[in-house]
Amino acid sequence: MKKIDVCYSPELINQFDLTDRCIVVIDILRATSCMVAGLGSGVESITPVATVEECEALGTQGYVMAGERGGQKLPQFDIGNSPFDYMKREFRGKRIAATTTNGTRCIELSKGGSEIVIGAFLNLSAVVNHLKDQSRNVLLFCAGWKGRFNLEDSLFAGAVCYSLRNDFELESDAAIGALAMYNSMKVDITAAISNSDHAKRLGRFGIQKDIQYCSRIDEFETIPTLVSDRLVINS
Amino acid sequence: MKKIDVCYSPELINQFDLTDRCIVVIDILRATSCMVAGLGSGVESITPVATVEECEALGTQGYVMAGERGGQKLPQFDIGNSPFDYMKREFRGKRIAATTTNGTRCIELSKGGSEIVIGAFLNLSAVVNHLKDQSRNVLLFCAGWKGRFNLEDSLFAGAVCYSLRNDFELESDAAIGALAMYNSMKVDITAAISNSDHAKRLGRFGIQKDIQYCSRIDEFETIPTLVSDRLVINS
Repeated sequence: MKKIDVCYSPELINQFDLTDRCIVVIDILRATSCMVAGLGSGVESITPVATVEECEALGTQGYVMAGERGGQKLPQFDIGNSPFDYMKREFRGKRIAATTTNGTRCIELSKGGSEIVIGAFLNLSAVVNHLKDQSRNVLLFCAGWKGRFNLEDSLFAGAVCYSLRNDFELESDAAIGALAMYNSMKVDITAAISNSDHAKRLGRFGIQKDIQYCSRIDEFETIPTLVSDRLVINS
Repeated sequence: MKKIDVCYSPELINQFDLTDRCIVVIDILRATSCMVAGLGSGVESITPVATVEECEALGTQGYVMAGERGGQKLPQFDIGNSPFDYMKREFRGKRIAATTTNGTRCIELSKGGSEIVIGAFLNLSAVVNHLKDQSRNVLLFCAGWKGRFNLEDSLFAGAVCYSLRNDFELESDAAIGALAMYNSMKVDITAAISNSDHAKRLGRFGIQKDIQYCSRIDEFETIPTLVSDRLVINS
């Protein structure tokens, strides 16, 4: 039986052997939700970068520049870090360069794996079905926040474990714990996420709309997959 | 309102400000359960040490030497790492030197805090009442296993959060997550712990009896507290 495990923070990723794994990177608020929403709405590719400078360099090559610092869009950028930005009609067929600190770091740290895909509530069932159909063991990699455990990413990991509990062996206590958290909170995931630390921080910038949207399930069947240094639709 | 937070692994302890905190060190299988059982049964003090050599040095001073490596008692030691060893009548009034890798490390890492106490299911209510009665913010510090998240320590943290949910603010997602795990599994904590990674590893050495005992609640009212380098009863 294939195995599935959960890493709660980039600070713990060294405890996992990524070799021959399928890694699902999870940063629900809001990096991976944006990636799913964007590619699911016709964006051609999303290139995650760590710094503003890298993003600007790609901007000179015609990329749409996306990103925030401290929860606010940078003035020289085209869009911020809201999934609604990524879904705009004008970006269909475009390439986006996105600065995300957590998200980019996790994608970098995942590069020992055999396949790197992007998970969010917005594409939950698509991710689950893909994991069933492929043959590798799986690691659900929560981006957390500044290295800390966070609720929304862990709940998503728990939702995936729940959906795959008959197809995969829960490999460690972390997977069992994520499933238990999900079982305890699944009656109202939106409420749980709205009470998370991250939502409270983001709430200060008045983006409850984003938080509500990022907790919606199965808006897209898109599975963003890392190919070289860009995310594209897995097909 | 006082705050309570949870650290799931020694690898994450740097994310917490320990200043003026009461730290509860948790290593259910089996270090902190042994400490509670021993001091609750009349042992005078328990000195946690990291290495076999330190333990032997204290042995020459008349300490009872306790410890295991790879789940087995060391031949030159008096007792292993079972709570039943610590409760033997012959050790009443004795000082024990105990080698525990995880437990000792966590106690060392806790030394920035104002008070360091030892928690286990065996003294759950005593710990809860103590935390209510004292004035500091609290950190529940799970020893984990080799730096990894583990279920039994996290469930104990969740049980404390559950008991204190009206007296303390759950400070972060980690505390909310621990509470959710506990809520999901509280109907049968013994079964949950028996299915944990650690129990499965220990089970290979045929110590189901220890695991069952370590999941018993409120066998003692003892709160082991660190004073200098030894654990004694808080009085």
